[in-house]
Amino acid sequence: MLFKQLFEPESSTYTYLLACEDTKQAILIDPVASEIETYLDLLEQHGLSLVYSLDTHVHADHVTGAKLLKERAGSKAVLHRNSGVPCGDILVTDGCLLRIGSIEVEARYTPGHTNACTSYVVDNMVFTGDALLIDGCGRTDFQEGDAGTLYDSIHNQLFSLPDDTVVYPGHDYKGRTHSSIGHEREFNARLGHKQTREDFIELMKHLDLPYPAKIDVALPANKACGNVDADCKK
Amino acid sequence: MLFKQLFEPESSTYTYLLACEDTKQAILIDPVASEIETYLDLLEQHGLSLVYSLDTHVHADHVTGAKLLKERAGSKAVLHRNSGVPCGDILVTDGCLLRIGSIEVEARYTPGHTNACTSYVVDNMVFTGDALLIDGCGRTDFQEGDAGTLYDSIHNQLFSLPDDTVVYPGHDYKGRTHSSIGHEREFNARLGHKQTREDFIELMKHLDLPYPAKIDVALPANKACGNVDADCKK
Repeated sequence: MLFKQLFEPESSTYTYLLACEDTKQAILIDPVASEIETYLDLLEQHGLSLVYSLDTHVHADHVTGAKLLKERAGSKAVLHRNSGVPCGDILVTDGCLLRIGSIEVEARYTPGHTNACTSYVVDNMVFTGDALLIDGCGRTDFQEGDAGTLYDSIHNQLFSLPDDTVVYPGHDYKGRTHSSIGHEREFNARLGHKQTREDFIELMKHLDLPYPAKIDVALPANKACGNVDADCKK
Repeated sequence: MLFKQLFEPESSTYTYLLACEDTKQAILIDPVASEIETYLDLLEQHGLSLVYSLDTHVHADHVTGAKLLKERAGSKAVLHRNSGVPCGDILVTDGCLLRIGSIEVEARYTPGHTNACTSYVVDNMVFTGDALLIDGCGRTDFQEGDAGTLYDSIHNQLFSLPDDTVVYPGHDYKGRTHSSIGHEREFNARLGHKQTREDFIELMKHLDLPYPAKIDVALPANKACGNVDADCKK
């Protein structure tokens, strides 16, 4: 399997390219609109055809490349049904599987940061979006966020994976690229083994975070698969 | 929307073609392998591109055309995750949505005839496979069938649809093409309003049906998307 982790510095977003080397079919997880040329170059360079772009959720901090990729690479836009995104092609629910050549992607519903968050499991990797971050987690104070729900999602849907599952988050602000389920279950400052559900809810209540800088642009655009004019008809 | 109901007489199977007239994208529900040329002719005649073939379950009475359609029309094979079919491209779970042009298909998990039965809702139509038949239902004595589960599926997932939802079944043996949810909820001989769950379980226990004639060929073939040599690698 071809695997690339890409970084968009303005929003510190990680995007992931996975491709089956036999069939030359590829997927992108959490593509960023501003990076579209990089993705198209990579696809061309490796002779890949993009089958799906998957979003882990409706992002509040950057604009998804889903619509541009539909138009320019012919891919289908995938995200959770609760996203309510009318231009999504495949709206998954918990447990859905997508197969792309030899790659099998399992959707695990992990709400709490938003009500449409989904993590994607591929082999021994899990792409956690903004649910589980390295030594942290997504905030829970907008988009139907809920700390108790996030705690349950992470414990039931992610910490139940094997210890050596590699965690690839949606963001990192300190240059870290990956972690493991075993490490996060033990040491994550907010969710590690010493933190109870009540501790976590209390902690999340008092983070006192600023209003997200890009949310007023990003949310309507992402509800239209990344169309900043929010006029996505298909 | 272009809509065609097709009939395969040997197994009395109904297959459904739905297409978006704007985008010329199409889906087939429960295609039969022996009828592949009919489907390809229809697609060509209307200038359609087949995006998905959907199976309502792993059939025991006929061989699906999913694999032939993948090869000859480039479609993706869709069925429920519980089917355990390794060559399925999209393995849905309850509530998944697939959008094809202006067509939105909702998967509703309706186990009981088999453990992988899914009905598909499109607008005011529901394609019920072998869960709900006209004035009857699928048998429950093989493939993890269970009468109580089927009763619950039909009541919770199908009879909860509006009265005027058109029921398009997977088979009919008496020449009937469709019914409605309102009619079946009231008059279905096995599941209508006079039948309790206990009545239904008791009735299904004593049907005394013969061993399905084609099951030994159909099941392994359908576990391989319709490859009668059961050697489907993708």
